[in-house]
Amino acid sequence: MKSTLLVGNAVIGQAGGPTAVINQTLVGVIEEVQKYEHIRHLLGAKHGVKGIVAEDFIDLKRQPRHMLELVARTPGSALGATRDRPDREYCERIFKTFRKYNVRYFFYIGGNDTAEAAQIVNQVAQDAKYELRVIHLPKTIDNDLLANDHCPGYGSAARFVAMAFMGDNQDNRALPGVKVNILMGRDAGFITAASILARMREDDGPHLVYVPEKPVSMDRLVEDVSAVHDKWGRCVVAVSEGIRDEEGTLWVERIRTQVNDGLGNKDAFGHSQLSGTGALADYIAGCIKGKLGKKIARVRADTYGYLQRSFPNIYSEVDAAEARLVGQMGVSYSLDADQDGSVALVRLPATTYSVGTKLVPLEAVAPPKPPKFRILDAQYIASDGNNINDSFREYALPLVGDLPKVGWFEQIAIPPIEDVK
Amino acid sequence: MKSTLLVGNAVIGQAGGPTAVINQTLVGVIEEVQKYEHIRHLLGAKHGVKGIVAEDFIDLKRQPRHMLELVARTPGSALGATRDRPDREYCERIFKTFRKYNVRYFFYIGGNDTAEAAQIVNQVAQDAKYELRVIHLPKTIDNDLLANDHCPGYGSAARFVAMAFMGDNQDNRALPGVKVNILMGRDAGFITAASILARMREDDGPHLVYVPEKPVSMDRLVEDVSAVHDKWGRCVVAVSEGIRDEEGTLWVERIRTQVNDGLGNKDAFGHSQLSGTGALADYIAGCIKGKLGKKIARVRADTYGYLQRSFPNIYSEVDAAEARLVGQMGVSYSLDADQDGSVALVRLPATTYSVGTKLVPLEAVAPPKPPKFRILDAQYIASDGNNINDSFREYALPLVGDLPKVGWFEQIAIPPIEDVK
Repeated sequence: MKSTLLVGNAVIGQAGGPTAVINQTLVGVIEEVQKYEHIRHLLGAKHGVKGIVAEDFIDLKRQPRHMLELVARTPGSALGATRDRPDREYCERIFKTFRKYNVRYFFYIGGNDTAEAAQIVNQVAQDAKYELRVIHLPKTIDNDLLANDHCPGYGSAARFVAMAFMGDNQDNRALPGVKVNILMGRDAGFITAASILARMREDDGPHLVYVPEKPVSMDRLVEDVSAVHDKWGRCVVAVSEGIRDEEGTLWVERIRTQVNDGLGNKDAFGHSQLSGTGALADYIAGCIKGKLGKKIARVRADTYGYLQRSFPNIYSEVDAAEARLVGQMGVSYSLDADQDGSVALVRLPATTYSVGTKLVPLEAVAPPKPPKFRILDAQYIASDGNNINDSFREYALPLVGDLPKVGWFEQIAIPPIEDVK
Repeated sequence: MKSTLLVGNAVIGQAGGPTAVINQTLVGVIEEVQKYEHIRHLLGAKHGVKGIVAEDFIDLKRQPRHMLELVARTPGSALGATRDRPDREYCERIFKTFRKYNVRYFFYIGGNDTAEAAQIVNQVAQDAKYELRVIHLPKTIDNDLLANDHCPGYGSAARFVAMAFMGDNQDNRALPGVKVNILMGRDAGFITAASILARMREDDGPHLVYVPEKPVSMDRLVEDVSAVHDKWGRCVVAVSEGIRDEEGTLWVERIRTQVNDGLGNKDAFGHSQLSGTGALADYIAGCIKGKLGKKIARVRADTYGYLQRSFPNIYSEVDAAEARLVGQMGVSYSLDADQDGSVALVRLPATTYSVGTKLVPLEAVAPPKPPKFRILDAQYIASDGNNINDSFREYALPLVGDLPKVGWFEQIAIPPIEDVK
């Protein structure tokens, strides 16, 4: 049974780390809203819930059309984002603004924290018997939202990582040694697993892949590197920032770095922070050098960091289109469903890749009890725990799109020396 | 006066760190050689001088045509590279191979180390009264070769950096704080300076830029960051890996990191190594946090690392074409000049950007006495030493090519509250 069409204003906000396509979702909403009558004003909240509480809005219905496509293609969150995780009291302040501005629709783009916040706001509204529709629009490069086949933002981050490894594999082939790259993903290895899409030839890297789902000891990792280096004379390693030891402790939590600035000053830093630091990469490279330094001269480590989520023009076309679709469908669901929810992507059973959407309950994406997020299916992790199976390609490649082709020389021998002279 | 055309074989090799376009130069030589008769066999030396000594060659004239364009577009060194810097004895072994294979032309693609090696090989040949033409083909992302307006490889690395800062600026705008990014360049700040191409609006990052040419103290850097953060509420900083203190010491040499693996083991690492480590980034972020942590909650640092030189498909069209041209012209010069040299790019005096090449003496690129490399012109460095002047755009933008457009919302206020309700 459909309720009477609710007429009022809408607020939209963006939360959490930006992605390459989060603005596609935003522009999808802006465009779709123009088609209908139920949303009179579309208020863009600056920096998510922060902007709602501060009543810091911009008018999104009157934006110049020519800018919308540019905004859609620009990485980062065009409205500004926030890391605030509102509690009940915060949500009551949000609701106060909603009531003041006659806001009847709340579109919130973000991950599971965001879906959780949306739930609390919804509860406050219900308790006040205030009719409000809350639509969560998923976004996360980590791809770890429950109830989704995959999440807008993932395909583009995965594409960046796959391309980066394609290049890094060529670099390592040119100047052989050990190369360790740290990828984003605290709990789920989806981004790290995408590194295997870079492999074109049998000896291409990454040769080893470690994800948070499969704990590993440093000794084991060093042994693995040694074995690969013995075989190929080089080794490229993909490591999730969320790598854990066999007791389930994050490696990064065990690293304590003491920095001496050369002037006698010492500061000790604890590195529970995962992104925006190279500590884990340096730690792993240091351990490999320490244990294998006699046989391997060249050990390097890079941390891809924020480049993974914000590099302009490196995005998956599929991801961009799906992110747009999620925004459009959010508006569509707000029209004809008398329920709140999150717009989930569903992979359709078809011979070629295709997706649909469905509106799932907010609790399905942000459940009250663990597991609160999705991790890699065990089938994708190699039995040795140090690699990702090729079957993951079928899952990930359609989301990432075709990768650039690489070329190499045929190993054609020169003619016999007597003919060459 | 031209000498009689010298007929024989040619060896080509690649040395040093790869670039996004080093294979363009290689393919330029392969294609051009097919047009003439003077080079019978083109021997590709695997891993540069190492492969020459080991007689490890592949036949480059008989490579499948369809692969050549793919190789040209692939980052990394398709023949393999080396960091070996041959001394006189090593060069005598190289010469022994040349004599054995009747090699009369030596094309060596690389930086100034490579030009120096080419000179020594040339000297050995001359001493033996063996006729040999040595052509050095420049390649360096650092852009620090003397006698060149700019170097093949630079435009593409600069493009990666400019795009990365475009994205990172959006990321920092979305989640404000301090973001420090470390860029390649031990002695010359060209790559770091290219970060300013990312600026489109007045408040766009990078807000501060530090290059090796201009020593700076940590106290000064932290003060600068504090002032920018006071002004814009955020701060994006570009720092060369070769940043020096006021005594001319590399910052990275002053950092000693002690890593505790949580099991009671401690290792001390010295970080004279610049690339493939995040130590400098973490050190700077740590110092900023230590001194400004009370007012700035969010400080992050990334090291762009090898991505700057090897990312597939992120290359400058101009750079790719010029790298190809340098290879083609190398073959052309080998035909009609009775001298050795390096193929330098010259910017022509014209209203629109255009370049030519000239063959310069090897000593011009690798002089026996300092200065051995080129640095940023003082005119490009802001008088405060913490930024790059806009005039650098005129130099760099034609080499980098047009950048992607970004979009942003107009700050259109919503109607008065009484009209919204």
